[in-house]
Amino acid sequence: MAHLNEHYLKLKAGYLFPEIARRVRQFSEEDPEQGKSLVRCGIGDVTEALPPAVIEAMHRAIDELASRETFRGYGPEQGYEFLRHAIAENEYRKRSIDIAEDEIFVSDGSKCDCGNILDIFSHQNRIAVVDPVYPVYVDTNVMVGHTGPADPSGAYEGLVYLPCTKNNGFVPEIPSERVDLVYLCFPNNPTGSVATRGQLECWVNYALSAGAIIFYDAAYESYITEPEIPHSIYEIPGALECAIEFRSFSKNGGFTGVRCGFTVLSKSLMALTSGGKKKALHPLWNRRFSTKFNGVGYPVQRGAQAIYSQVGQAQVRSLIGHYLGNAQILAESMRSTGLEVFGGRNAPYIWVAAPTGYSSWQVFDKLLRDVQVVITPGVGFGVQGEGYFRVSAFNSRENAEEAARRFKKVRW
Amino acid sequence: MAHLNEHYLKLKAGYLFPEIARRVRQFSEEDPEQGKSLVRCGIGDVTEALPPAVIEAMHRAIDELASRETFRGYGPEQGYEFLRHAIAENEYRKRSIDIAEDEIFVSDGSKCDCGNILDIFSHQNRIAVVDPVYPVYVDTNVMVGHTGPADPSGAYEGLVYLPCTKNNGFVPEIPSERVDLVYLCFPNNPTGSVATRGQLECWVNYALSAGAIIFYDAAYESYITEPEIPHSIYEIPGALECAIEFRSFSKNGGFTGVRCGFTVLSKSLMALTSGGKKKALHPLWNRRFSTKFNGVGYPVQRGAQAIYSQVGQAQVRSLIGHYLGNAQILAESMRSTGLEVFGGRNAPYIWVAAPTGYSSWQVFDKLLRDVQVVITPGVGFGVQGEGYFRVSAFNSRENAEEAARRFKKVRW
Repeated sequence: MAHLNEHYLKLKAGYLFPEIARRVRQFSEEDPEQGKSLVRCGIGDVTEALPPAVIEAMHRAIDELASRETFRGYGPEQGYEFLRHAIAENEYRKRSIDIAEDEIFVSDGSKCDCGNILDIFSHQNRIAVVDPVYPVYVDTNVMVGHTGPADPSGAYEGLVYLPCTKNNGFVPEIPSERVDLVYLCFPNNPTGSVATRGQLECWVNYALSAGAIIFYDAAYESYITEPEIPHSIYEIPGALECAIEFRSFSKNGGFTGVRCGFTVLSKSLMALTSGGKKKALHPLWNRRFSTKFNGVGYPVQRGAQAIYSQVGQAQVRSLIGHYLGNAQILAESMRSTGLEVFGGRNAPYIWVAAPTGYSSWQVFDKLLRDVQVVITPGVGFGVQGEGYFRVSAFNSRENAEEAARRFKKVRW
Repeated sequence: MAHLNEHYLKLKAGYLFPEIARRVRQFSEEDPEQGKSLVRCGIGDVTEALPPAVIEAMHRAIDELASRETFRGYGPEQGYEFLRHAIAENEYRKRSIDIAEDEIFVSDGSKCDCGNILDIFSHQNRIAVVDPVYPVYVDTNVMVGHTGPADPSGAYEGLVYLPCTKNNGFVPEIPSERVDLVYLCFPNNPTGSVATRGQLECWVNYALSAGAIIFYDAAYESYITEPEIPHSIYEIPGALECAIEFRSFSKNGGFTGVRCGFTVLSKSLMALTSGGKKKALHPLWNRRFSTKFNGVGYPVQRGAQAIYSQVGQAQVRSLIGHYLGNAQILAESMRSTGLEVFGGRNAPYIWVAAPTGYSSWQVFDKLLRDVQVVITPGVGFGVQGEGYFRVSAFNSRENAEEAARRFKKVRW
């Protein structure tokens, strides 16, 4: 008889966003008038239109599919050469990072890649995640059996949690115990923190000496404004030999509803067989793409390519400028009321310390009831998020300004 | 130190299509003049333009993304309600099959689904595949460790191979040994065979009694012309309790380069825990979608929806008619030379027995050298494919007619 994968049964219900929705719904039912004036700063989804260059490129590609002479069916599973080339050139070679086109794997998004990457690793690796954390890193490990059950705080047995706190500037310290795979994300969701070159050098040197591999999620790299902050982990010497980079078009090109991202996996990245032989991981990831994926749609890849045109780059810069402008307005309004505010300079997220005596959820309830602003309670991202809340800058300017006005009115 | 997934190292190199490409290249180099006149009947990829209704719907959706008022970011991971509803209504309720919208999971293609479905099953299941077989079923099982190494014929230890031969009409018999998961594909790639209602009833009854689950790949269902042949396994009573159906827009709407498909997994489909408890699989598949996938792009889903409009349906019928017309022309030409020809009536593939004394690859070489037609050697799909070859009807009418003329000239 068919048996199911019991590791799924260990998963905690996706608690955070359904619970937010429940509380918002309850509030709106109790007070329909106030419910109508809600300003939502909770969600990490873009709000503005796609860049015109992307729109034009996608229209053109669809017209190509409308005629048999220019029709394209199956493309290369790993992405069209035109897009892999644009990525290699613009994201890497311009920063003097030596990446070949065939070390870039175009996918339908970073969330898929972050989960799928585990396919090419054995089950005996020791896994480290940061806390607070993007839940996908944790849940995908639970699903394949890399953990035991969760404790009452939601932490899973067998995972190594690396605290990101105010004391370490929300950049985790090198673990004292052995780990084999480490998830890092900079600029960080949810804290909005970035890692300096020196901090990334420590991590790369650690990984090289321990034979560990870093899963480097740089989905928000285009929000980096400080010139000394690395955009790619491959700016650090040696990183090609110890890191896989995950990138996305969701938060620069606004592709959350279009779906495109990519991973970079260098041919020089090695891992061990059980017999202790070093083997390259590139053929495995390449084979996974060939066998379990059929490529990203052609119009989508043309849209992604357009992001790298001169006009596309200017349009993306303007989008990022818009969201970072929101972040500044929101951060200043909260700072002006005496709150301690982090992030928001090189990221679309602001991480705010709750006033003394408030838990994350108490802040959530107070902001909802007093000023009808929806935020995300930090504890939803992990134990270390307790006492914090996340404010998203993904909004119209009008909404961001309105939220900022309301934050100023709150009496803590 | 990080360890890799060694099961990948058992995989045989993707031999078939690279080897075809190599032989074609060599021939074209040796005889550039003849090389120019090649007619390719090897590939299972559509050749004709997307239906106009799809083109229009995708243009409209892209225009919506061009303005912040109508912009859409993240959609539901399992697909938009508008598409799930259109599928449930048109594919199932019209055939009196009771499927709810939330039992339909919209994905970026059947190839992904066929591989990903294994995520929700344990590693202790015994797996059966047909022979000849779509290689993705086999390779994805190898990758997760469900098999031992391959023998010299390419068959993997631990898999149960179900022969599909001329004697059983290319529909496998119920296995005599225990199996827990069975891959069936009708209309079949590569043989073009279909299963009758009676044959499917046998399979469903077997699965229900053995507690086995059928993975039913119906990517080619819209090619069925004979009214008594089931389009969905759910036309068989009890199938909702023992089968997962995989469907695709690749071969009806021509979406191979657009990427959209879906799975159907009923809430009444159960599997066992190791403790012997029956649990529904639906929450596991739903959780996989939420955690490891972020939905199909909005313009693509609008394109898929357009397939179900009245005008879209007519355009799809015309496309299918075109390819089936090719199939008839190709099949007749080969029959006229005395070859034994199968499939092509309810499928875009024709499965041809090689004349006595010819192996699959000998036929390939002869057709390439004598008449410059490229086909696919049957042995590339499995041991039971030896002595057969596959002719694809995905082509322009002009090419199909030219190939048919050339087949008639061959002296066996």
